Amino acid sequence: MCGTDENGTAPQPAQNQKSASWPYSQVQDYISQVNSYKIIESTLREGEQFANAFFTTENKIKIATMLSDFGVDYIELTSPVSSPQSYEDCKTICSLGLKSKILTHVRCNMEDAKKAVECGVDGVDLVIGTSSFLREYSHGKSMELIQKTAIEVIEYVKSQGVEVRFSSEDSFRSDLVDILTLYKAVDKAGVNRVGVADTVGGATPRMVYDLVRTLRGVVGCDIETHFHDDTGCAVANALTALEGGATHVDTSVLGIGERNGITPLGALMARMVVTSPEYTKSKYKLSQLKAIEEYVSSVVQVNIPFNNPVTGFCAFTHKAGIHAKAILANPSTYEIIDPAVFGLTRYISITSRITGWNAVKSRVQQLGLDLTDDQVKEVTAKIKQMADIRPLAIDDTDSIIHSYHLGLQAQASSA
Amino acid sequence: MCGTDENGTAPQPAQNQKSASWPYSQVQDYISQVNSYKIIESTLREGEQFANAFFTTENKIKIATMLSDFGVDYIELTSPVSSPQSYEDCKTICSLGLKSKILTHVRCNMEDAKKAVECGVDGVDLVIGTSSFLREYSHGKSMELIQKTAIEVIEYVKSQGVEVRFSSEDSFRSDLVDILTLYKAVDKAGVNRVGVADTVGGATPRMVYDLVRTLRGVVGCDIETHFHDDTGCAVANALTALEGGATHVDTSVLGIGERNGITPLGALMARMVVTSPEYTKSKYKLSQLKAIEEYVSSVVQVNIPFNNPVTGFCAFTHKAGIHAKAILANPSTYEIIDPAVFGLTRYISITSRITGWNAVKSRVQQLGLDLTDDQVKEVTAKIKQMADIRPLAIDDTDSIIHSYHLGLQAQASSA
Repeated sequence: MCGTDENGTAPQPAQNQKSASWPYSQVQDYISQVNSYKIIESTLREGEQFANAFFTTENKIKIATMLSDFGVDYIELTSPVSSPQSYEDCKTICSLGLKSKILTHVRCNMEDAKKAVECGVDGVDLVIGTSSFLREYSHGKSMELIQKTAIEVIEYVKSQGVEVRFSSEDSFRSDLVDILTLYKAVDKAGVNRVGVADTVGGATPRMVYDLVRTLRGVVGCDIETHFHDDTGCAVANALTALEGGATHVDTSVLGIGERNGITPLGALMARMVVTSPEYTKSKYKLSQLKAIEEYVSSVVQVNIPFNNPVTGFCAFTHKAGIHAKAILANPSTYEIIDPAVFGLTRYISITSRITGWNAVKSRVQQLGLDLTDDQVKEVTAKIKQMADIRPLAIDDTDSIIHSYHLGLQAQASSA
Repeated sequence: MCGTDENGTAPQPAQNQKSASWPYSQVQDYISQVNSYKIIESTLREGEQFANAFFTTENKIKIATMLSDFGVDYIELTSPVSSPQSYEDCKTICSLGLKSKILTHVRCNMEDAKKAVECGVDGVDLVIGTSSFLREYSHGKSMELIQKTAIEVIEYVKSQGVEVRFSSEDSFRSDLVDILTLYKAVDKAGVNRVGVADTVGGATPRMVYDLVRTLRGVVGCDIETHFHDDTGCAVANALTALEGGATHVDTSVLGIGERNGITPLGALMARMVVTSPEYTKSKYKLSQLKAIEEYVSSVVQVNIPFNNPVTGFCAFTHKAGIHAKAILANPSTYEIIDPAVFGLTRYISITSRITGWNAVKSRVQQLGLDLTDDQVKEVTAKIKQMADIRPLAIDDTDSIIHSYHLGLQAQASSA
């Protein structure tokens, strides 16, 4: 029932069908970063804000090591100011010598920044709320004070030979002119990256494109983006940000984070292996994704969502008759992602009332039986009839096929 | 630990902060349908293609009734040609007299269309693959033959006084000129809706906007959209389609469908209650969403994903100290959706190492204890210390607070 392409790559429409006119099939915005994006993996920071997360030092080391092996560019850790253990763990992970650079995420003040640098991180991610909501109800600071503090802290971190990012929080509900002014000032002060954050998960792809595209014209530094998933747009927003000129995307494994979380690493990989197949497949060890998701899901005690892109239990299961027929002829008809790229396989179900005879024929052949097309159609009708009555398992349908085949043999020998 | 707004509505940024310049906060494209969108609920068609789905007649009646009560405009059923029971169930559901109109989804040929009309449906949804992939590997028909057949079938269905939709399959990998030609012809033939389908789940928001916006200029009829979620963009694509002039969105409960499914009803509601709060809240009974999801998840034997928008177990849980502080002052700081709109409540966690003293202060007050801010900070440090060692439950943190409070009383009485 399973089959994968030998070469592990699904045919790409643009390669096979150069003459057809699909919008976007061969167009690439000059400003787009989809072929050079970088990942800031925040399972050990944003993910620690997930309701179920309690990471031991051992968990943190294993997660960081797996993510580094997978190929993420950066690993972000909880602020060392959060608790004594957070401080110790930050130092421990910095000392592992991982391939990924290690960041920690701290409030934009000198005390927190000093503690971060003390831990030996490669970079410090500064954050402060800039929306009128957060300025009124959280820290109460004016934009002038935010800017003054930001520049002092940035200059300090840079003086220590450490990378520094400055991010607003709730960027999409911040005054556009205010944040552009602020980003321009910190860019001039030599920040390595500015960050745009949809902290409440309310942004839409077109809002994201507009803001990032505008910001791209204002600053020369890298642009990092962070999207919460409250309204189900976190993956699409991340892609659209890259199209608009953002350079970095924040992810966490399975998207774990505050509330229902952020852009999931796995779903982003599903998206980017379609948008930017060569870069994505050469840079990230996609076949390790499932093991990483399984480890993190066991640590935070959740099930991998049934509908998860790529690793959901039925992400490559085909059931309707017309789908199965075409998939058997060419997997690209109903699959935009080749499961083999992620070390997975496809499955064609024939156990339901909506199956079709082409799918059943494929199973008949796998069972080594010899039936004509008319006979396959007859046994398909028997399967559909039974599937109307109760749920069938694969051994039920195999029994129906075998029993039908035996009946034919009995008829032939008695004739 | 829980609290909701009395009036059931979160403050809207655009109302509170008219002077601020947020992109999109007050802009509305003239072509956008976000304030008048309609839902075609396909749990009983697309959802039946989900690997785990086996719906009995009783399940189907209950699901259709719940969806109709919820307020969806259309309910789409599996083709009556699929199996004898599918035919019977289609007739049964048409006879229930539900508020939602009943559709069935059939292949674009006269035989299937006649069977559909025979069942008493309000509308017939015709579908045929138009991508070169599907034309080569599935049905093998030319565009000319597709168009000729489509017009014959459309004219037949209309002659029976029944609504008719014509949809391509795999629209985003179909030749743009081919499908615009086809849609223009069926529009002229009087079709009620044309459908755009991202059958493989590879479309991106900007591809969707461009195709729908272009199509909007070519046809006068309604435009239905159908998005698979293989690359995590199904919700954002649906929204962007509405922004580009589409009128209808296909959904299923929890997104169940082929592979990892389509735009989920619940996630679309989360998106639209933010984008178009008045229309969405007045049209759909959002407080019934959770019950519908729970019923369907039990029928198809899956768990509601931990990270589901709105109904995921932690969608309204706040954990980090700086989030909790602001949420306590004004929920809109870190919530774009008011949980009360869906009949749900929020939860502020104080059981982790990343909690903060404002969150703990709120719990101290709920427990009816009297502590100064300095004392709250001291007990917060104790909680963080303990939370560094092991996962804490809410009664653990309550015990730490009570024990600290008792200690203070003992000091006071011995002094």
